[in-house]
Amino acid sequence: MPLKVVNVAIVGTGVVGSSFLEQILNVKSSYVKFNVVAILKNKSHLISKDYSSLPITAVNWASYIASNASEGSLTPAALIEFLKKDKTPAILVDNTSNAEWAYAYPEFVSNGVSIATPNKKAFSSDLNLWEKLFSGNPDHGLVYHEATVGAGLPVVNFLKEIIETGDEVEKIEGIFSGSLSYIFNTYSSDDIKFSEIVAKAKELGYTEPDPRDDLSGMDVARKVTILARIAGLKIESTSAFPINSFVPGKLSEIPTSEEFMKKLPEHDEEIKQLKEEAAQSGEVLRFVGSIDVKQNKVSVGIQRYSNSHPFASLKGSDNVVSIKTKRYQNPVIIQGAGAGADVTAAGVLSDVVKIAQRL
Amino acid sequence: MPLKVVNVAIVGTGVVGSSFLEQILNVKSSYVKFNVVAILKNKSHLISKDYSSLPITAVNWASYIASNASEGSLTPAALIEFLKKDKTPAILVDNTSNAEWAYAYPEFVSNGVSIATPNKKAFSSDLNLWEKLFSGNPDHGLVYHEATVGAGLPVVNFLKEIIETGDEVEKIEGIFSGSLSYIFNTYSSDDIKFSEIVAKAKELGYTEPDPRDDLSGMDVARKVTILARIAGLKIESTSAFPINSFVPGKLSEIPTSEEFMKKLPEHDEEIKQLKEEAAQSGEVLRFVGSIDVKQNKVSVGIQRYSNSHPFASLKGSDNVVSIKTKRYQNPVIIQGAGAGADVTAAGVLSDVVKIAQRL
Repeated sequence: MPLKVVNVAIVGTGVVGSSFLEQILNVKSSYVKFNVVAILKNKSHLISKDYSSLPITAVNWASYIASNASEGSLTPAALIEFLKKDKTPAILVDNTSNAEWAYAYPEFVSNGVSIATPNKKAFSSDLNLWEKLFSGNPDHGLVYHEATVGAGLPVVNFLKEIIETGDEVEKIEGIFSGSLSYIFNTYSSDDIKFSEIVAKAKELGYTEPDPRDDLSGMDVARKVTILARIAGLKIESTSAFPINSFVPGKLSEIPTSEEFMKKLPEHDEEIKQLKEEAAQSGEVLRFVGSIDVKQNKVSVGIQRYSNSHPFASLKGSDNVVSIKTKRYQNPVIIQGAGAGADVTAAGVLSDVVKIAQRL
Repeated sequence: MPLKVVNVAIVGTGVVGSSFLEQILNVKSSYVKFNVVAILKNKSHLISKDYSSLPITAVNWASYIASNASEGSLTPAALIEFLKKDKTPAILVDNTSNAEWAYAYPEFVSNGVSIATPNKKAFSSDLNLWEKLFSGNPDHGLVYHEATVGAGLPVVNFLKEIIETGDEVEKIEGIFSGSLSYIFNTYSSDDIKFSEIVAKAKELGYTEPDPRDDLSGMDVARKVTILARIAGLKIESTSAFPINSFVPGKLSEIPTSEEFMKKLPEHDEEIKQLKEEAAQSGEVLRFVGSIDVKQNKVSVGIQRYSNSHPFASLKGSDNVVSIKTKRYQNPVIIQGAGAGADVTAAGVLSDVVKIAQRL
């Protein structure tokens, strides 16, 4: 089997992008060779005009970019033009969470460029966009997105593979947010006020700068949309199902995060009642996403679980997914870190390797 | 991307082989086309002399074989000769647990034939055999064996992939036997004698005809050998580490299974003591395989786990694997059915698809 050579264009050198660059530049394989031919940052870019592999290593890439990059960035269209001109097959690695790039994916794939990304946007926006990316057209580039749900955990590809062998998904349920996992795991096990645990999570960097972005459940809603679509449900968008935000009603319109955090303690008592009612039945609160294929139902929000349920013993900020299918009547349960730069980048890199092996 | 066509030779039409045939004949893909060109049973075989796809469907394959197969079977060498003569790349699917076929794998791979199999023998015998199969020689066929550990659960490929991205395995621990999982899960949760639960498991078909084959831990030892080798340990063979059989010493030499089952109740009391000692500390007994990479230690046998540990809440005959790595300091935990015809066959078919996509 001849060595497979692919051109790789990397967009985004932030937290995940940096880890991705370090990992891909360290790979030693007898089967695939990666030519990194483009790196795009917010305000600068580096292009290898002759399509040879950029002279960078896992250690020096950042300083090389600092010294050699051109000003300004490239648009998706400009990048497609650049990649199309070389006959070596190309892979776009989008390490941003940018909607502009997400909406450009169909142009990439119809031009034969494959994509590997943790960016949830393309997969959880209009159903129409999803369908363009997975049309099954053999002339189109391949699209892999393991790291959009559960970072590097074997969830997205595993689901697609078992479905390809003829299995049928019945139910999926999970805790898909590291921040909400940490918050509710700690809230149920420690004697602590809800507002205090949210403050602590924010301090530890587990939440967005405005914790309402986590508590609203939107991130979970995107992930659940992706899994539901893989399972065969035609979810038009994240507006198509109930998202039971855990932001107390009155607090969702407050303009700033600081004010929100100041007012959150006013709701500690009512949230404590929820916790205690559950505890009396030997249950804990968990923020989950649920998909019921037969009933065509998808939802996001707080649920109660028995102390003996796997979701009750979750550690730290781990994610967990429970997958019940025709063949797995006792669900498959996969748990582990579902966020973090290195595991996310590793999930993206695994996808890049798989694409390269197929081209 | 042109449609990838592969020749598939299937050995074994037993429990797993039958399910595999049904599944592969039902696959509809825009990317790969499977020509099933050979089916080998114990005493008969079917060959497509012109390498066209055999005219079989998921529904009629068994009766077609019954009506059309030739007598006798083919040797591995004869099958290699047949496959080599066609330029379409070939995949051997070995659905047996036969050592003769396992030892023939190096001949297949050096002749460019790839392999997908649940047969543990090739991967848990001499280290030398393992090394021939994974030499990294780009002219050799590819070897995939997801279903050798945990059937269709994403374990073997997941481990190889994270290691390829630069992760390093520290510890692996798991319950790798469906029969032992069922026996010890039920023993700890029900008020039942050990000999009674073994008898029930045998009746339900969860154990081998002679339950000592399960209780000895040899099946677990093979799986642990495979995972340890993936993690980088040079395990010479299954004799290289302690296998703490749960067959009471005096009973291991008894000639027949029936006599063994008659005498097992004599050991119920001493086994009950183990159970009760554990219970007093809030723990349960589980039959596990363990790998500690830093300490270069591998072992198989009974361990005790706290009631709150994920291993304690295992259901039915599920398997569970806990994987701790440099990046996953809270281990990744994967659990679900680790045995059964359909999930095992699906694991093998996923591998066949992956190989086909790469050729």
